[in-house]
Amino acid sequence: MSKSLPKRSENYSEWYNEIVKRADLAENSAVRGCMVIKPYGFAIWEKMQRALDDMFKETGHQNAYFPLFVPKSFLEKEEEHAEGFAKECAVVTHYRLKVDPNGGLMVDPNAKLEEELIIRPTSETVIWNTYKTWIQSWRDLPLLINQWCNIVRWEMRTRLFLRTTEFLWQEGHTAHETEAEAIEETEKMLGVYATFAEEWIGLPVLKGLKSPNERFAGAVETYCIEGLMQDGKALQCGTSHFLGQNFSKSFDVKFVNKENELEFPWATSWGVSTRLMGALIMAHSDDQGLVLPPKLAPIQVVIVPIHKTPEDLATISQRIAPVVEELKAAGISVKYDDSDNQRSGWKFAEYELRGVPIRLGLGMRDLENNTIEVARRDTLTKESQPLDGIVAHVKSLLDEIQASIYQKALKFREENTFKVDTWDDFKIQIEKGGFILAHWDGTPETEEKIKGETKATIRCIPLNVAEEAGKCIYSGNAATKRVVFARAY
Amino acid sequence: MSKSLPKRSENYSEWYNEIVKRADLAENSAVRGCMVIKPYGFAIWEKMQRALDDMFKETGHQNAYFPLFVPKSFLEKEEEHAEGFAKECAVVTHYRLKVDPNGGLMVDPNAKLEEELIIRPTSETVIWNTYKTWIQSWRDLPLLINQWCNIVRWEMRTRLFLRTTEFLWQEGHTAHETEAEAIEETEKMLGVYATFAEEWIGLPVLKGLKSPNERFAGAVETYCIEGLMQDGKALQCGTSHFLGQNFSKSFDVKFVNKENELEFPWATSWGVSTRLMGALIMAHSDDQGLVLPPKLAPIQVVIVPIHKTPEDLATISQRIAPVVEELKAAGISVKYDDSDNQRSGWKFAEYELRGVPIRLGLGMRDLENNTIEVARRDTLTKESQPLDGIVAHVKSLLDEIQASIYQKALKFREENTFKVDTWDDFKIQIEKGGFILAHWDGTPETEEKIKGETKATIRCIPLNVAEEAGKCIYSGNAATKRVVFARAY
Repeated sequence: MSKSLPKRSENYSEWYNEIVKRADLAENSAVRGCMVIKPYGFAIWEKMQRALDDMFKETGHQNAYFPLFVPKSFLEKEEEHAEGFAKECAVVTHYRLKVDPNGGLMVDPNAKLEEELIIRPTSETVIWNTYKTWIQSWRDLPLLINQWCNIVRWEMRTRLFLRTTEFLWQEGHTAHETEAEAIEETEKMLGVYATFAEEWIGLPVLKGLKSPNERFAGAVETYCIEGLMQDGKALQCGTSHFLGQNFSKSFDVKFVNKENELEFPWATSWGVSTRLMGALIMAHSDDQGLVLPPKLAPIQVVIVPIHKTPEDLATISQRIAPVVEELKAAGISVKYDDSDNQRSGWKFAEYELRGVPIRLGLGMRDLENNTIEVARRDTLTKESQPLDGIVAHVKSLLDEIQASIYQKALKFREENTFKVDTWDDFKIQIEKGGFILAHWDGTPETEEKIKGETKATIRCIPLNVAEEAGKCIYSGNAATKRVVFARAY
Repeated sequence: MSKSLPKRSENYSEWYNEIVKRADLAENSAVRGCMVIKPYGFAIWEKMQRALDDMFKETGHQNAYFPLFVPKSFLEKEEEHAEGFAKECAVVTHYRLKVDPNGGLMVDPNAKLEEELIIRPTSETVIWNTYKTWIQSWRDLPLLINQWCNIVRWEMRTRLFLRTTEFLWQEGHTAHETEAEAIEETEKMLGVYATFAEEWIGLPVLKGLKSPNERFAGAVETYCIEGLMQDGKALQCGTSHFLGQNFSKSFDVKFVNKENELEFPWATSWGVSTRLMGALIMAHSDDQGLVLPPKLAPIQVVIVPIHKTPEDLATISQRIAPVVEELKAAGISVKYDDSDNQRSGWKFAEYELRGVPIRLGLGMRDLENNTIEVARRDTLTKESQPLDGIVAHVKSLLDEIQASIYQKALKFREENTFKVDTWDDFKIQIEKGGFILAHWDGTPETEEKIKGETKATIRCIPLNVAEEAGKCIYSGNAATKRVVFARAY
């Protein structure tokens, strides 16, 4: 068996990297900042995609596909958007290589593009340029489109899943008749993300607004969901933007409204990415490895036979075969691992590392007693259960685990959320980690200073929280509401 | 109602373009050669993806994701591969824009990449570079990986779905212990493609080998499936390549075999793309518009109420509601179109244009008679059916349509496949279109000359066809087998 993982308490960052690597989730590629998502990691992402896609379709959205390339002139059209993305984009300048007289290949100088193409860092510009012909009348609205695709942002410091040069995501882009409808859509999709985070990933999230400093480039308002990781740092897990009429105006998209007048439609965009894989890993995993919520586990149940002789194995295999079939018929993804290249102890550790929610162990003594050993990954507890009725037990246990890891994460967040009222306490608490609820005077200047002195950022201005008069933690000026501070990924 | 489509017999090319446009499948984007796949078109592609993905998984493959970028040095490693793709690739040379003092944005000359990155035209090089660490021992083989992604090849003449600069595809990349296993995999996946084309798209395909001239750059042998379109031109619908040890050698990937010796693994790669959308459109559609095989139709059944008053509509809606529910429960995708913005005649034409396989029409007289009008898109026939039992009728009719459009396409191909034995007949027949079975002497020179004089290419050297001694259609030299010639897309 390979050496054990680093401990979270000793080196959280190294612990994370090792889980990603050893659980076969992803690895760095030869191309700077780009990752290879390995089959086991990709299987989890596929489950996320399927669940989200179903939720998007249930809320009336359709998928489409838009080009990878953004002409430079498109990026220039919305000023803030251009500023936000120009500094980190991959630029295609040529469309051909040729044989290099010195050997190998070289860029063909005769194949220079008239206009450079940017690899999409997000698709508002390409999509709103297309919407110009799609939207003519109020009858064409709302237009509710989503796309699943790859994105490139030239990040300088990358981290598998959390921040990579290329990543996979979905981006919704909608157009509406009225401002109110667009804001409703923005909030609805934020709600979809929060539901997904909580019910699928098992991660409680705060819903809120970003401060102007942290807004998406080109948005009027950015909503976000924020999760708390086990090291006390925050992770932004998804954003939903109310874009106002910024892009419809930049791309001159107009529609004839019910009063027969020309008007600019109101827009939203919203996205979640493979970063959610990072959230999933950091939310629940422990020093033994990955802990997966059953709803997103590629293998929900693994069955390991414990035997000494081939005859014993045959007996066990025969007895377990109908259980395997019954589990499959119940829609549970199960693996019976009777491979002979490793001992059962090695297998136990391997499936723990990979976060399989339930492990069933079956030996000859179990068969005699008509029992089976049931091990829970989340609690690392084991119990002997009657072999009869094991399928029903597994089914309800999967539900219990899904609920339990969410409750555990919720409890962790509650224990690590602090109301702080003085600057000294703030500086002490920010070193310890967690969400800090504190008053802020609402100015970008104060926000910048707090960030400069403590590396804490405003994660969000929480929604649905009562006003509470107080004094800004930093400036002492009057403030009406607590906002959420934390250090973040 | 908009004007009718161009007729296939008068302007096939324009007919194709208009169907793609009017059935809302795709459109050209502002970026040269890149398409926007619209929601209705994308829904069909999603159905194709789901069916293929299930077939890949059933045959033991797993999905993963590899980077979009190919370092130039990777492309250089396999010489034939490099030659094949260097001339048509998008090259990233910079990673930042900056504000242009003359206004707008410009490429930042200080952000030039040390090594240029190519947007993947295919991923053999990136993937085999990764396999170097994944493959150590025979226990790691076979390695059966697939990825769904976007691809860029800088095509000069583009056509929606058939040939675009960016397209979507899947690419399988497998590694095996022995040559025989790799060839078996190559042929197995060709079989999967043929099954998909026939059972889902309803398109009969020929399976065969490409001649050396038409081989994938870097392959030892390229297998393909070829379909015949209604204008008598061939369309290559998918390819499966036996790569030998070319890429394992270029990227120095070795494994310890069962005899404890170091060896290069044997490779395959195989892919189908959004080009299949073009095949689907051209295989079955008619002068009224798209004809979709039920298995790939986003809407399988549309129900249109025929009424004069709102009261009539309410009566019809009430009667049909349980039928809609029953159809959904039977897994049939159904749309009840009670929208009031268009007349039923307009709707009939619209759903015909979009290729919905079955249209049910229900008026007040039908209700009195307890009947419903059933219209088949493929045959454009109508019949009155008892309203009771309509769900069972629709279900079997969908199967019948699926089978029937395949049979129709098969009959078309059979009627347009010709054995030709003289060069004069060849030149006459190639103008008329269809597959020509003729002897070829096996030399690239003859193949080139035939292509130069007639634009006919060897579509494939068919598999499982008996040898038949004869003389080359062009050179008169001895030949052992007929090969398939056609003009092609």
